[in-house]
Order: sequence, then C-alpha cells, then structure tokens
Amino acid sequence: MSGLSSPKPLRVGILGAGRIAKVHVQSLQRIGADIVIIADPIGNVAETVAANFRIASWTKNVSEVFQADIDAVVICSPTALHAEQIIEAAHYKKHIFCEKPLDLNLEVVDKAIKAVSDAGVKLVIGFNRRYDSNFLRIKKAINCEEIGKVNMLRITSRDPELPPIEYIKGSGGIFCDMTIHDFDMARFLIGGEVDEVFAMGHSNNPEVAAVGDIDTAVILLKFCNGVICNIENSREAVFGYDQRVEALGSKGSVLCDNNYENQVVLSTKENVHRDLPQRFIVERYMDAYVAEMEAFARVCTTDAPSPVGGEAARDALLLALAASKSLAENRPVKVDEIRKST
Amino acid sequence: MSGLSSPKPLRVGILGAGRIAKVHVQSLQRIGADIVIIADPIGNVAETVAANFRIASWTKNVSEVFQADIDAVVICSPTALHAEQIIEAAHYKKHIFCEKPLDLNLEVVDKAIKAVSDAGVKLVIGFNRRYDSNFLRIKKAINCEEIGKVNMLRITSRDPELPPIEYIKGSGGIFCDMTIHDFDMARFLIGGEVDEVFAMGHSNNPEVAAVGDIDTAVILLKFCNGVICNIENSREAVFGYDQRVEALGSKGSVLCDNNYENQVVLSTKENVHRDLPQRFIVERYMDAYVAEMEAFARVCTTDAPSPVGGEAARDALLLALAASKSLAENRPVKVDEIRKST
Amino acid sequence: MSGLSSPKPLRVGILGAGRIAKVHVQSLQRIGADIVIIADPIGNVAETVAANFRIASWTKNVSEVFQADIDAVVICSPTALHAEQIIEAAHYKKHIFCEKPLDLNLEVVDKAIKAVSDAGVKLVIGFNRRYDSNFLRIKKAINCEEIGKVNMLRITSRDPELPPIEYIKGSGGIFCDMTIHDFDMARFLIGGEVDEVFAMGHSNNPEVAAVGDIDTAVILLKFCNGVICNIENSREAVFGYDQRVEALGSKGSVLCDNNYENQVVLSTKENVHRDLPQRFIVERYMDAYVAEMEAFARVCTTDAPSPVGGEAARDALLLALAASKSLAENRPVKVDEIRKST
Amino acid sequence: MSGLSSPKPLRVGILGAGRIAKVHVQSLQRIGADIVIIADPIGNVAETVAANFRIASWTKNVSEVFQADIDAVVICSPTALHAEQIIEAAHYKKHIFCEKPLDLNLEVVDKAIKAVSDAGVKLVIGFNRRYDSNFLRIKKAINCEEIGKVNMLRITSRDPELPPIEYIKGSGGIFCDMTIHDFDMARFLIGGEVDEVFAMGHSNNPEVAAVGDIDTAVILLKFCNGVICNIENSREAVFGYDQRVEALGSKGSVLCDNNYENQVVLSTKENVHRDLPQRFIVERYMDAYVAEMEAFARVCTTDAPSPVGGEAARDALLLALAASKSLAENRPVKVDEIRKST
Repeated sequence: MSGLSSPKPLRVGILGAGRIAKVHVQSLQRIGADIVIIADPIGNVAETVAANFRIASWTKNVSEVFQADIDAVVICSPTALHAEQIIEAAHYKKHIFCEKPLDLNLEVVDKAIKAVSDAGVKLVIGFNRRYDSNFLRIKKAINCEEIGKVNMLRITSRDPELPPIEYIKGSGGIFCDMTIHDFDMARFLIGGEVDEVFAMGHSNNPEVAAVGDIDTAVILLKFCNGVICNIENSREAVFGYDQRVEALGSKGSVLCDNNYENQVVLSTKENVHRDLPQRFIVERYMDAYVAEMEAFARVCTTDAPSPVGGEAARDALLLALAASKSLAENRPVKVDEIRKST
Repeated sequence: MSGLSSPKPLRVGILGAGRIAKVHVQSLQRIGADIVIIADPIGNVAETVAANFRIASWTKNVSEVFQADIDAVVICSPTALHAEQIIEAAHYKKHIFCEKPLDLNLEVVDKAIKAVSDAGVKLVIGFNRRYDSNFLRIKKAINCEEIGKVNMLRITSRDPELPPIEYIKGSGGIFCDMTIHDFDMARFLIGGEVDEVFAMGHSNNPEVAAVGDIDTAVILLKFCNGVICNIENSREAVFGYDQRVEALGSKGSVLCDNNYENQVVLSTKENVHRDLPQRFIVERYMDAYVAEMEAFARVCTTDAPSPVGGEAARDALLLALAASKSLAENRPVKVDEIRKST
Repeated sequence: MSGLSSPKPLRVGILGAGRIAKVHVQSLQRIGADIVIIADPIGNVAETVAANFRIASWTKNVSEVFQADIDAVVICSPTALHAEQIIEAAHYKKHIFCEKPLDLNLEVVDKAIKAVSDAGVKLVIGFNRRYDSNFLRIKKAINCEEIGKVNMLRITSRDPELPPIEYIKGSGGIFCDMTIHDFDMARFLIGGEVDEVFAMGHSNNPEVAAVGDIDTAVILLKFCNGVICNIENSREAVFGYDQRVEALGSKGSVLCDNNYENQVVLSTKENVHRDLPQRFIVERYMDAYVAEMEAFARVCTTDAPSPVGGEAARDALLLALAASKSLAENRPVKVDEIRKST
Repeated sequence: MSGLSSPKPLRVGILGAGRIAKVHVQSLQRIGADIVIIADPIGNVAETVAANFRIASWTKNVSEVFQADIDAVVICSPTALHAEQIIEAAHYKKHIFCEKPLDLNLEVVDKAIKAVSDAGVKLVIGFNRRYDSNFLRIKKAINCEEIGKVNMLRITSRDPELPPIEYIKGSGGIFCDMTIHDFDMARFLIGGEVDEVFAMGHSNNPEVAAVGDIDTAVILLKFCNGVICNIENSREAVFGYDQRVEALGSKGSVLCDNNYENQVVLSTKENVHRDLPQRFIVERYMDAYVAEMEAFARVCTTDAPSPVGGEAARDALLLALAASKSLAENRPVKVDEIRKST
C-alpha cells in the first residue's frame, strides 16, 4: 500500500470494459495511474464503466484509444482480439498489458511477440497469480533453497463452479483456458523447461462431455531437470476457489493453504468449523491484481524488463497443447513434438 | 471493494498530518471522497502530505479548515486537542470523525458530546477494530446465537514492541491508551453494562515502571448480565501484533487467530513453520480503516446514526478509569464509583 | 511405548474400583505391573473389575490390601478417605499413589505428609496433566528459554458438561475440585510461589447456584516473580474437554490447541469443518495416565524422588482456598493469609 | 481402549521376531491375546523377544509353531516366506495374519489364496493403514456421502528417509514395496476396479538409480467409475513420515493432515513453528496396529469375514505390476494387460 510519489503518473487506455477491465481500473486508480480512456464496442458498457469509475472519456471505437495521449494500453478484450490489438498497440508504440491467453495458436502468438519486439515496447501478460503473496512466498522458499533442491511440485487449481456451457464451448478446452495458469505457475516456480506431459481427464458433468471438454483432470509434467509436477484441476470444487501449491525438496517442503475472509473458528456441539475459503476470483486475487498493475506501471516507467512477457505466454501454451494431445492420444507427449510441429 | 457510485462525494478536511492521518487519507481516497484540505501546525508535515497524496490545499492554521467548503472533519491531532476541535467543528456544523480516546477527562468528554448533540452533527469515534472482519464475524456469531448465551469473553491484545518511553509518559497510562480499544471491543461484543472491574498489572521493563506505568496486565470485567471478560495486554509480544478474541457461550465457542501475510507453511528437518503474523497496526487493520471511512462517509451522507458515537468513547473511558483505580488500590472497583465521582 | 524390561515388576494393590481405578488398572497392565489385589467396599464392583481385567484377587475389606504381598498402593477411593489411607499405607511401608485432591483441609494434608515422611515411603499425587505431551512441551519451552522470561500464563480448563449436582455438592467447590488441577499446572509451569489470588465467578446454571457453587470463573494469580496467570474455568464447554495453555515470554509465546481424534478436515458448500476435540477425560489423558503410572513405578523401584509429592498437593490446595476466600469476600487474597491461618 | 471381556483369549503363534513382530506382540498383549510361542531361525532373536515380552515359549524351528496349541499365526517373516507359511498354516487349520505384500508373483499369490480358501481358515493381510483413524474418517466421509460422489483422490505417501540400499535392492521396487500400501488405500477408499495406470518416476539419489529403482514418483490411476487418483511417493521427505489423503467430491472435499506428537505452537521473533510430524512408522501407526490385531482377533473368534483378505493383496499387487510396466514402457497400462498376462 502506498501513496503516489512519482511525479508523473502512467497514462493508460483500457480496451474492453467487462469484468476484468473493472478489476484493472480499480487497481490502476488505487496506484494513482491516470486512466485516460476506456473503449468497448458493445452497448453502453464503456460509458457505464467510465461514469462509475470517473474515467475522463470513453468510446465504442477501440481504435480511438491508440490516438489518445497515453503511455500504455491494458487489453481486456476477448481472447480472439488479443493478438491483433497487441500488434496495433505496438504499432503506436504503446506499452501493453494483455490478459491471458495471448492466443490459442502458436503462430499467432509468435507474430504478436515479434511485433512487440520490433516496436521496442514492453509487453506484460496477465498471469496474475505470479503476484500473489502465497505463491511469491513459495517461490522465495524455492529460490532461497529453504527446501533444498525441488523434486516434486503439486498445483491444486479448482474453480468453485462450472462456467456457462457456452463459455466452455469457446474456451479452447480446459487446458488452454484454466490449466494455462497452472502451466505458467509450474514454470514460474521451477524455472526450467518441461520435457514431457501426460494428462488424464474425465467429465463428471455430461454437458461438458457433450461439448467435447472435460471438467476433471490431473496433468503430469516432467521437467528436464527431473522435477515431477502434478496439476489437479476441477471445474467444480463446491466449497470455494481452491488454489494451493506444494513443493517437496531435498531439505523440506513448502505448501500454502487457501485464503479465508476471516480467521474465525466456531466450535459447537456438532463440529469445529470456519467460513468457506474465498470463492470469487476477484476477491481472492485482488491484492495480486493491484500488485500486477504496480508491476506493469513500473515496467512502463522504468528500464525494468517485463516480469512475464510474450515468451511466458508461448511456453504455457506449448504445455496446454501438449496436454491436449496427450489426452486425445492417451500417451505421454514430448513438448518438443508440439514445438516442432509449428 | 467497490467503485464510487454516489453522485456527490463527501468533502473532508483533515486535522493533523501524522501517521494515522496518512492512513485515513488513503482510505478516503480509496472510497472516492474529496479531501479538500489538510492542516497541521507543525513544520511542513501538512505540505508534504498534501504533495504526496495530491491533496488540493494545506495549511498550518487549523482553524482555516473549518472555513473550507467541507462536509466533515477527520480529527487526527493529539488527544489533548480532540475535545476542543470537536466543539469547534460542531460549532461550524461539520460532521466529525475523531480518533480515540476522545479525552482522558470525563467532564471534558461530556462537554464535547453535548456540543455535538446541540449542533445536530454526527460524531464517529475511531474504534477501528469494530470494522475488522474477524471481530465482525465474532459479533455475528454472538448476535445470531451461533454460540448461544455468552458466558465468558477473552480479549488478547498485545503490541509487538514497546513505544518510546516519551510516548508512554504522555499516554495517560496503559488502560487509557491501549486497553481502551479492548474495553470498547468488550462492550461492542457483549452489548451491556459493566458492573465491576479488577486489574492486575506488572512492569517487566524497568523504564516503564520508572514512569509509573505497567506493560503487562490482565483486566477482569464483570458485566451486569453475568458475563465475565478477561483482557490480556502486553506492550511486547515480540512475534507480532497479537489481536485475538474468544467467546464461550451455552451452545459453543468462537475465537479468531491472528492475521498472516500468507498461508504458507514450511517443513524442514528442524520444524514446521510459517512467517510471523502481521506486525504493524496499519497493515493489520488497513481493511478495517477503509471500512471505517466508508462507514463515516455513509453516516455523513445519509440518515444513518453513528455506529460508535461519543457515548462509546465515554463508556470505554469509564472502564479505563475504573481499571486504573483498581490497579492503584488493588481491589475490584464498581464502575458506578467512577460514574458518580464526576 | 515399551516392552517390560525390568526383571521384577511392581506389585500393586488398588484401593477403590470406580472409574479412575479402571484407568489406572489398564495403565498398570500396559506397563507390565502386577496388580495383586483390588478392594472396594461397595457392592460387587471390586469383583467385577477383577474379573474384567483378570486381577488375581479382590476384596471388600480395604484393610486386606495392606496385608497383601505388594510394594505399593494406588488410592482411588473418595477424597474423604485419601488421608487416612495414606497414613495407613505409610504405616505398612507401602509406596503410595493418591488421586487429587489429597484432602480439602490443610491440617489433614499436613498430617498425611508427615506420616509419609516419617515412614520413608514415596508419595505421588495424581496430577495427571503434568504427564501430558502438550503441557510437557510447553514446560520444556519455558525451561529451555525458548520464549525467554515468562510474563503471562493463561490456562483454559473447561469441562464438556456439568457433573451431577450431587457430585458438585460434595466436591468442595469448583476451585478445590476442578481448578486445583490448574493451580498445580500454573505452579508446575512457572515454578515459583504465588503471592496473591483474585477470583471472579458466576453461576450460569441455577442449580449450581442453588448448592452455593459457581460454574464459570476466571482466577488471577500473581506470582512473587511478577508473572500474572489467568485461569479460565467453565463446567460446560459443550464442544468438548477444553484444555489449553498459553504462555507469553520476553522472546515469544507458546500455546497448545486441544487434541482431536483425527486430523481430517471436511469442506462443503456450508463450511470447512472437523470433528470435535476429544470429549472424555480418559481418552484425552490416556497417554498421560500411562506415563503417570510409569513414573510411579519408576519412583517406587528406584531412588528417584516423587515428581509430584504431598507438598504439591498442599500448594495447590492453598491456592484453591485463597480463591474461595477471594470469591467470597470479593477482594484479592494473599496466599500468606491462608498459609498463616492454619 | 478396552479391557478384555471375552472369556477365552485368542491363542497366537508368531512367525518371525523382527521389528514388526515386536509391534504385533505388544498390540496382542494390549488386547489380551495369549501369545503362546514365537519362532525365528536367526540367532537368538526369538529368545530375546520372548524374554523381553514374557512370551511363554520360543523356538528357532518355525514348524514347531504349527504344532503348538494355538488358534492363529501372525506371519512377520521375510516376504519370500509369506506364501509358503500361509500354505503351511492353512494346512494346520490355523487362522492367518500375514504382513504385506503377500508375494511379488501373482501365481504364488493365487496359490496361497487357494490354500486358505480350501482350508476354510481366515486370512488377514497387514494393510495397517486401513485401521488408522484419519483414513477411516475419510472412508466414512466418502461412504456417508458427506462429499457426494468422489471425482478425484490424492494419496501423499512419503518416507522420512531412504532405507539402506541393500533393502531397496531386495524390495521388488518402489511400487511393490511402498506404493502397494497406497494402491490398497486407493481401492479401500474408492471401492471399485482400476482400469488404467500411468507412472512417472525419477531417482534423485544416484545410488537408487544404480540399483535400478526410483525414489520419487507420481502414479495416476483411472478407476472404471471415472475417479482419477494420483499417488505421490518419495523415499525422502526429511521433515517426517508424510501420510495424507485428499478426496474431492461433488458436494465437497475431505483431507487429512499428518499426525503430530503434540499440539504446541511456538511464536518467536523468527517465525511461528511447531515440532515435526511423527517420523517413525511404528509411533505413527501404533493405534492402527492395535486396531488391526483387534480386528484379527475378532475375525478369528467370530463369524466375521476378513476385512482385508488375499484378494486385496492380489488387487494391490496388480496395480504395482501395472505401474512398473508403465514406468518401464512410458505409457499408460491397462490393468487387464497384467491380469491376462498370468
């Protein structure tokens, strides 16, 4: 938490005015950034958000944003628009924050990365969990050798409830939509390359099966350095948003529990209980979202490199594609198979 | 977390520009209030805070604040000035937020309360812990009879380290300075009147003893409804800011643990450990401070009554004075003794 | 856990065949002691227990025990008989284990202690909690200065439910019956003398009030070395047998939670819960009871002194009597007042 | 905890006098069984154990046990002798308790099962974890639908330190030696058949690699009913014996933490810590071992069927063999492949 001490706040334009856009708007305001304009082609959502958050101007024409007096854009539009908006922003020499996934197609991802690189602007991908205090503490434990050399990593990552089936249909599948965060987390924590991926999955919900997706999965990653990582995914952990990590190393282990709204425990004649863990993604990761925007502002206003650039988006996508192939063919898949197929 | 939706934000003047003023400034900005002016007679602190937090104007002449175009004042000045500034604010028909304690003298407190009442303005006392999610959950458990009829209440309230001896000298003693929060919490949670107070104390630190104060105390309250409350205070719980409450009722118990920066647990050959609980009052209670300012803004802009007015300040002071007398005379003291002595 | 390695097991006679006798019988059998005889004047309880636990002989005539070929007696009879049975055992040169309290009268206690001393036998008082792994770990933390110099101690000690009113009538009052364990625990952990006692109490249950006792109390002890101890008692903590201790020292704090039957946590749509803590005194302290009998056997078969002899019983009783007087007269009572009154 | 109430205790002979034999001897004595004889061909171990535990007779000739006046044998000999001793015991019409694994060869297992069946005696396999209070509580949560229909199961099962390399050499590999407990646990909790197995493994310790084994593994099981189970194994979790289970179902989740010697938490300037979880298999599972012998005695003295008979040994072995094949061939293996290959 800090007041604004920098003399010249970052000037930002927002592309998209949906749920995640509102989250970033609030974070940007809290860190003292100037939100110059917000754009959304749909209905009056840009106007409404601008009014509610006292944003100076709004537009339905996204291209106007690039003309505005801004340093950077925050891309909160649908995935299908990410790459082209990145390329356009790079063209206008604006720094870019883009929500994950960059794209579901490796070639498209590569094109966007090249545009950013050619333009010499900064690109930060929205892997928000990297800024979470739990996972940062686990990262520190690993980096500072508090647990020695890591041998195993487990990522438990479960949503509290199924999204609408329409959403799932267009999501690119559970691995590209949901596990992609976990793939990034695994690479963030372990640091090296993954050699092989094996995925086992199942649809508990017949509607999910009907659209060709799964809602329950365990994905194994074998890192080149020997670390074995298992990722547990479910679309429906009814008790809350289940986000935990555990690493075992030669000198010990480190794990995190979920976050709770309060630390209160009730004991009655029936049992000892507490309220459920945080259920909603925004409340669970609000501090991480603010830290993410702080990191983005710092990257845009200093020489600091992007903490999570286009390559990270590409690497996570590689693992998602390998997992998809593994599930489809029921065999372990080398990441190199995917890498070379493009 | 919410954006500002009210059409007309509260206009506020801040009296005092020290540590707690900065906390309130940030909270007010986060909830979208307009901070019109900040005043502090000392050096250039008002100017500095105004610059750092982009406050429109500042002054060293506190009286100027009352002339400004404001709806309310937030009093963050030293305790000795609280009552007179409340009275002046009431005179100018400004709503008032005032840090605790209102004053250490019952007659002065009464005079301030009367001025507020006569002027028809709102007064909110800064018992910030009332807005904390842990204590609110305990309050709810009590109110909703999740634990039945309460029989015992324990408040553990310990600072991580001794303040400067100079501060202690001018603090009015541990009961008026530190326990006053706990006295308010006891009354907030139990709701009735206290009949009798007994205090046992000790100075572990000889410097504290030298200025006539104690640093370690247990205070017992007997409520008129039979509830027994014990408050545990220490100026030096080296592991962190120790803030816990436990209530036992006829149908169960409720308690809260401290808050931690993360939920990470490390297991090594030596032990199983986690990082310390939050140590600093501002980080520990930041969410409560924001909620406090939201409550203040709501009170000022609607018909809502003050959630914690002058009477609460008076009631907590009565208990502090009874505890002081109990310690001095080594006997249980009826609150009525104090009430009637003024 | 250990097999029996001593060549000659301890030969024991049991006085009384009620609930606690059965506990000690099982502990003695588990450590390989020979239970030679069990005596109880009431009905056929001695016979039944002898049959169920394969004890060689039984009698309704308690005096027969002293004639048997035994090294030691374990006194599990009603409190009123403790002192005289101790004196008789001492006369027959038998080592003695006696349940707490030794007696409710200080002069009687002194007479029993003298008889033991004159006979040169060993006396171990049944303060079973001293052998509990939680409290032993706290003791170690204090002794090894893991928390530095202790400043405050809290003992939470609550029964899951009210005993029969008839039992309460004859119990000598809550302080002599229930808190006496906590008084012993306070002295066990802190180690020095108590200067002053203050007790605040209340009857939630009108039947308890009707027989002149209380069911809810907080007792403050001021040790001569400045340590403040607060003891929380309730006859009715409906969620289980609530047995916790917390100490604050100059370098940190140490506390223990209750014991649970399992480490299982369930998370549902309603809450996160676990089963209740252990409810029954025997299951909660079974390991401590076994360790207690091991200690008793060791004391009887070696030169080791009693870990908790007659003086400990006397010291705890002094505090119970001081607490009773404090409650009756609503004032802090010096332990010396009690000490000198006899 | 219970005294012996059955009129006629079970008469038992023990085959083998090593570490696990001593554990079973103590459990049998605690539940009041008569240990008639103990046999071990090596040195004087049978004699020593007999002396230490006051067992009536001992022999170096294992066959003598079958001639003794016993109802049942407890087989604690090396794995290679299990099957032949089962067959011999069945021949003499003795009930049989046999440590896991029954054998590493499916045909041998089948022969032993047939002998037991033909003789009409009872066979109980030593999957001791089935009697552990944590896992029984999880089983109950699943059976009573406290978490609805199970979708995922995770078993974390790690030893505190590597056994001697000589032991590993003769162990049959990690899956047959260590994971076999987890395979049984998975089947115990889920109840149905496993369709497919995939294993990923690694040797952190080069000595383990040198003898052709691994020390780190994740094994995935796909049950026919769709449940996905992941088992995490390590030979070296330096902080203790890491034994945890977590199940996710349609209505919630259930998990257990490790067991600790005490519930004590220490807070210092450095961190908040507790002592390590139980490290040694015997102390961790002592209560389960006692319950196991109680179950065995009950099975032998009543009509009750074996809670875990030869089929359970066979089923766990099938999974171990499938995992070994999966690791060797780096592909998912159908259990049917193994089933049909014999």
